[in-house]
Amino acid sequence: MTPPDWVQSELAQLPAYLPTLEERMAAVIRFSQLNFERQTGGPFAAGVFEEETGKLVVIGVNRVMPLNCSSAHAEIMALSAAQQIVRTYDLGGPGLPAHQLVVNWRPCAMCYGALIWSGIRSLVIAGSGPELETLTGFDEGPIHPDWQHELTKRGIRVIDNLLRDEACAVFRAFGQSNAVVYNGRQG
Amino acid sequence: MTPPDWVQSELAQLPAYLPTLEERMAAVIRFSQLNFERQTGGPFAAGVFEEETGKLVVIGVNRVMPLNCSSAHAEIMALSAAQQIVRTYDLGGPGLPAHQLVVNWRPCAMCYGALIWSGIRSLVIAGSGPELETLTGFDEGPIHPDWQHELTKRGIRVIDNLLRDEACAVFRAFGQSNAVVYNGRQG
Repeated sequence: MTPPDWVQSELAQLPAYLPTLEERMAAVIRFSQLNFERQTGGPFAAGVFEEETGKLVVIGVNRVMPLNCSSAHAEIMALSAAQQIVRTYDLGGPGLPAHQLVVNWRPCAMCYGALIWSGIRSLVIAGSGPELETLTGFDEGPIHPDWQHELTKRGIRVIDNLLRDEACAVFRAFGQSNAVVYNGRQG
Repeated sequence: MTPPDWVQSELAQLPAYLPTLEERMAAVIRFSQLNFERQTGGPFAAGVFEEETGKLVVIGVNRVMPLNCSSAHAEIMALSAAQQIVRTYDLGGPGLPAHQLVVNWRPCAMCYGALIWSGIRSLVIAGSGPELETLTGFDEGPIHPDWQHELTKRGIRVIDNLLRDEACAVFRAFGQSNAVVYNGRQG
């Protein structure tokens, strides 16, 4: 589950703390763009931060094709890397600061379930409408129809529509390229 | 994402082909029990087989706690391992035999999404009712209310209620032990 080489150097250039949600999302969107442009995966990135201070834990990117692993979505990569760094399977465990997941769009059906298991306390997304699927051609799967409420019920706050246009610009560029769109579940 | 040591030797003792669905499920349930008894993870296992011949590709087990990784469910481990073995992110890709996922209960919300991305053509489960949650204490999360139909729509056949009692016996033993039950999404 290794990240591409450029991720380590880009992470090192970011400040240790990103206090505002806009700064966190801007960093995530930048990684989504770099991942697509450098051909190291799909146009998706996800960051784990300490919610209150904005301390950057890690940013992960989509690695499905390079790693031959359909589960290597950005959220799974970021959450798994964060759990290795914090040395726990539960980022919401006792004695830990609240952790936040920042993603450049609403998670797919798989990552939706994954973020619930991860222990994060809030989810920040650039948008949740059909734009991702329309602009890129990806089919994000059967997420629960009442997905936001199901998160809230479990103590996970959702903040939607942050830097929406910036996120869509990356999806648009991806959609206009010749990149392969993998929708595995057509069987 | 390493499996426990015992998995390799147990896999080596299985025949190369398990022609009937009962044989496939029995092997998976045995792995779910061994994983719990040997304290190498939760009472869950998942096998990937070539659908028609029953050729065993791999069986994976839950590794959440030992690996500090909340996504290390049996299905994710098995599908990822199978994709490494077959060298593709799409087990339903052109030129490949149809692949089948066999699990000792209905997948959680995350693994439900993961199996759709994986390219498998059929899902065989020991059961899909509330027994798993009742007997073990695990909360499997907000799966889509019409989950079976959503799979069928995507060309993934579902075979339910295979060796149900045998699967429940393992959950019952787990529930009666002192094993930790992790439900991360309580935050």
